[in-house]
Amino acid sequence: MDSERLIKQIEFIVEVDKLKRIFRQNAIIGTIESENDAEHSWHLAVMAILLSEYSSTKELDMLRVLKMLLIHDLVEIHAGDTFCYDEKGNLDKLEREQRSADKLFNILPSDQAQEIMNLWLEFETMETPEACFAASLDRLQPLLLNYHTSGHTWKRPGINSEKVLKRNRVLEKPVPLLWEYAQEIIEDSIQKGYLRK
Amino acid sequence: MDSERLIKQIEFIVEVDKLKRIFRQNAIIGTIESENDAEHSWHLAVMAILLSEYSSTKELDMLRVLKMLLIHDLVEIHAGDTFCYDEKGNLDKLEREQRSADKLFNILPSDQAQEIMNLWLEFETMETPEACFAASLDRLQPLLLNYHTSGHTWKRPGINSEKVLKRNRVLEKPVPLLWEYAQEIIEDSIQKGYLRK
Ligand SMILES: [Ca+2]
Repeated sequence: MDSERLIKQIEFIVEVDKLKRIFRQNAIIGTIESENDAEHSWHLAVMAILLSEYSSTKELDMLRVLKMLLIHDLVEIHAGDTFCYDEKGNLDKLEREQRSADKLFNILPSDQAQEIMNLWLEFETMETPEACFAASLDRLQPLLLNYHTSGHTWKRPGINSEKVLKRNRVLEKPVPLLWEYAQEIIEDSIQKGYLRK
Repeated sequence: MDSERLIKQIEFIVEVDKLKRIFRQNAIIGTIESENDAEHSWHLAVMAILLSEYSSTKELDMLRVLKMLLIHDLVEIHAGDTFCYDEKGNLDKLEREQRSADKLFNILPSDQAQEIMNLWLEFETMETPEACFAASLDRLQPLLLNYHTSGHTWKRPGINSEKVLKRNRVLEKPVPLLWEYAQEIIEDSIQKGYLRK
């Protein structure tokens, strides 16, 4: 068999196995073990399947939503996970991630490299209803994990409910009912002592 | 906020977090750590995005393929992972998994419970082109991981190339070029001493 195209695709598939060892700040529920980006991406995709009815834009292209969620963190293979409340790390985040995207996606045949790049940029720029919906889930999922691990990452210095609310306000327009739900669990987390006011 | 429907959906989303701690037989490339079902499901979904052109049936419904791959192992939350070459474990596998499906999927509102059940049954019965394509990737992915971990799970007693070929023959009709590729890496694995003939 001699297919240069397939060889590139397989090389990429083997390379992205590394996403399973890019660890995030959140812990898996019931453990103190860090969630990794592959698990996180899977969880978001399952959430998208179940929660699309809450989108304020009807008739989302769900195939594009799922593709975006499945690939949105691949750039962290080279750039690493940047904690969302790390102000310094977030200054050069996009630049580091763009370099990583160039290096990683170009393993693929050029048409597919372009497709994955476009999906990633769509997710990052949040200008389409699909990207806004996807990004909302990317906020809600860590909120759920924190709520169910007694505020695992919220214990760090400098994190309080104001910052958490600000970060999750992304949900307000794309998924209003989920934003209402997010505010409720943030309020309840303050009451329960998981999160400083 | 008072939405019984959303509360059920969130309960399910929290419950399936457990898939991240259902370990498989394969190791992650470059490690001796076991892959888990969430990572595996994510990896299959990425493969589906990239390899759909090899499907012998054109115009697959890719949204259904991705949904199937994302949920196909959820039943292992209660039933556990059954090693594909474990003959005894495979005798009552479907029965154990059906019980798990009933328990797990019925956390959801009934319309969604039914949707996820149908997707899981479609995957299991392999009677649609989408299910055959999805099932083919579910064979090819562990083959790739084994090939890139010097035959990590192939070292066990009783496993040989005949059994591995038999298991992967599922690829022959749905994705002929990938079946050709699979045979090549099986042959190369024998040459390299990763797999007994
Ligand atoms: Ca991220």
